[in-house]
Amino acid sequence: MEKHQFYMQRALELAIKGRGQVNPNPLVGAVIVKDDVIIGSGYHEKYGGFHAERNALAACTQSAEGATLYVTLEPCCHQGKTPPCTEAIIENKINRVVIGAKDPNPFVSGKGIEILKKHGITVIIGVEEEICQEINNIFFHYIKNKTPYVIMKYAMTVDGKIATYSGKSQWISGESARAAVHQTRSEVAGIMVGVNTILQDDPQLTCRVEGGKNPRRIICDTHLRTPLSSKIVASARKIPTYLATCSRDQKKIKRFEIMGCKILAVSKKGDHLNLQELMKQLGAEEIDSILLEGGGTLNFSALKSGIVNKLQVYLAPKIFGGVAAKTPVEGPGVEMPSEAFQFTDRKITIFGDDICLEYLKR
Amino acid sequence: MEKHQFYMQRALELAIKGRGQVNPNPLVGAVIVKDDVIIGSGYHEKYGGFHAERNALAACTQSAEGATLYVTLEPCCHQGKTPPCTEAIIENKINRVVIGAKDPNPFVSGKGIEILKKHGITVIIGVEEEICQEINNIFFHYIKNKTPYVIMKYAMTVDGKIATYSGKSQWISGESARAAVHQTRSEVAGIMVGVNTILQDDPQLTCRVEGGKNPRRIICDTHLRTPLSSKIVASARKIPTYLATCSRDQKKIKRFEIMGCKILAVSKKGDHLNLQELMKQLGAEEIDSILLEGGGTLNFSALKSGIVNKLQVYLAPKIFGGVAAKTPVEGPGVEMPSEAFQFTDRKITIFGDDICLEYLKR
Repeated sequence: MEKHQFYMQRALELAIKGRGQVNPNPLVGAVIVKDDVIIGSGYHEKYGGFHAERNALAACTQSAEGATLYVTLEPCCHQGKTPPCTEAIIENKINRVVIGAKDPNPFVSGKGIEILKKHGITVIIGVEEEICQEINNIFFHYIKNKTPYVIMKYAMTVDGKIATYSGKSQWISGESARAAVHQTRSEVAGIMVGVNTILQDDPQLTCRVEGGKNPRRIICDTHLRTPLSSKIVASARKIPTYLATCSRDQKKIKRFEIMGCKILAVSKKGDHLNLQELMKQLGAEEIDSILLEGGGTLNFSALKSGIVNKLQVYLAPKIFGGVAAKTPVEGPGVEMPSEAFQFTDRKITIFGDDICLEYLKR
Repeated sequence: MEKHQFYMQRALELAIKGRGQVNPNPLVGAVIVKDDVIIGSGYHEKYGGFHAERNALAACTQSAEGATLYVTLEPCCHQGKTPPCTEAIIENKINRVVIGAKDPNPFVSGKGIEILKKHGITVIIGVEEEICQEINNIFFHYIKNKTPYVIMKYAMTVDGKIATYSGKSQWISGESARAAVHQTRSEVAGIMVGVNTILQDDPQLTCRVEGGKNPRRIICDTHLRTPLSSKIVASARKIPTYLATCSRDQKKIKRFEIMGCKILAVSKKGDHLNLQELMKQLGAEEIDSILLEGGGTLNFSALKSGIVNKLQVYLAPKIFGGVAAKTPVEGPGVEMPSEAFQFTDRKITIFGDDICLEYLKR
């Protein structure tokens, strides 16, 4: 069993190399082992490209006949952009397949395993299962719900402020925490903010990681107040930019479209955009994941409407104070402590003087 | 060297048993070793009682002649409430003394070591020095400054709230975090709150640890607004209670004194009590440590006046939201991020679903 874990961990290390490159496909890594030697390995490198199993087979330094294939996710058995991986496994006379997690995709789920077994291949399931699932929490969510996996992220002081009373927030986190945020931006399909962030900070919302992919930008703008002169609109031809709005002002809409923005017409729910409806529209655009970098108002609406899957809090060892200083989640708030939004599965990561707390929504 | 560390760690384990019992004396543990066997051990158990070295000598199962004494703090050489420990060490013909940290007390500092050396005893200094100092950070601070070591403590949600918008705060933390707070209360000499906390919550501010000592209670009450009917005033005869005030209303003051409260007359600084002056008065009352469980206004004043030494933040995995919900540090706040109050030496402790973040003031 320890041997299985060892090779699965190698496959996991390969799988996560695909981060930010394969959405909305899953991250998959594969290692082929014969006589206790890795004879080939590979991973799913790019959306539309070969799957991990085929890359590993292609990389083999000798015949894979009789070998064991370690793969983080159940091999596919359907014709997609590439031919089914089960076929390649059978053709190459692999003797045993060790699988991390089953595929939740209804077109695959369990069927890949069945086909392999029918062909006399030994199948072992569930090695390092938890991590194999965790690296694909976005994919698993998207396949099931057809809406993006939403990560609510904010940086705050240890007294819960996201800006000083005068609205200044540069910088709360240190350099390594900020670098981590840009890394996350490179790994998600979309980044979402409220129009107030555009009005106050006029941000680019780009990814500043060397070679990193820019996420698509989504602005929640109920009344279409985004300035045509903002940096985000000016760069909409280069980086896909969505304006989600309840405004039906066709003249205004036309102007944004000319600048290259895509308008998403969303219904109203109370005073705000219907965020659940917006998530469906973004899912249809193949946006499988969103980093929500909202202010307090949007963050509260997002929690209230139930679209948040994960919380990512960067905490800096400083105090701003200030009764008027902004906090990460505002809106009306809950009345009783028992009504609080609850989180679970804490993970703590250190970034120099800062820490990052991650939780899943309960 | 490893052997020295091993025995010093035993001495440290003993030392911390005195927590909450010895203030304003230091925590000290001692272990006496002969032929690699511990033949006696002890610690400073109670304010006014014997020092660790004497307790260890008294507990010896055989003669301590030629033995090594491990002691977390430099032995005293002056006549205090008990005779000097250096005498006992010499009389018992201890051969070697291994010391954790030097005593910062100006009456001792280095002198104890000198006397031992003069009597031909080998002295080794600085084994597990950092921990030996850390367990006595309160004592070291108090000896040097003659003011209490102030620990600012609050419990907040992961969006930085200490209550919902309606003022409800029971409970933010889970049971094990709350138990830890009561443990801390049993270990400090005083607990301090603002009058607003009394008006809103009418708390007891007692320690609910089995056998735990109640800290003295200090209320910052600039205008003497504490109700005579409050629980804290009602129990002032049983648990020492200080009202720090700028009010000179003798009729009012008399009433509180009749109830058993002690009035501390403090000057005004801006709109608030002069906290630095209050710390001097509390130091003169032999209060060596304070747990500050203030609201946002008092917490900001405390930071601003520079009296805070340590920060203790309990963080619960829940979100209240609410633009009107209270945050742990309010007041005016700082204008620029670069003016933030800075903290260092992070320590993270897990309490079930909650975490406790501790920092030292930079």
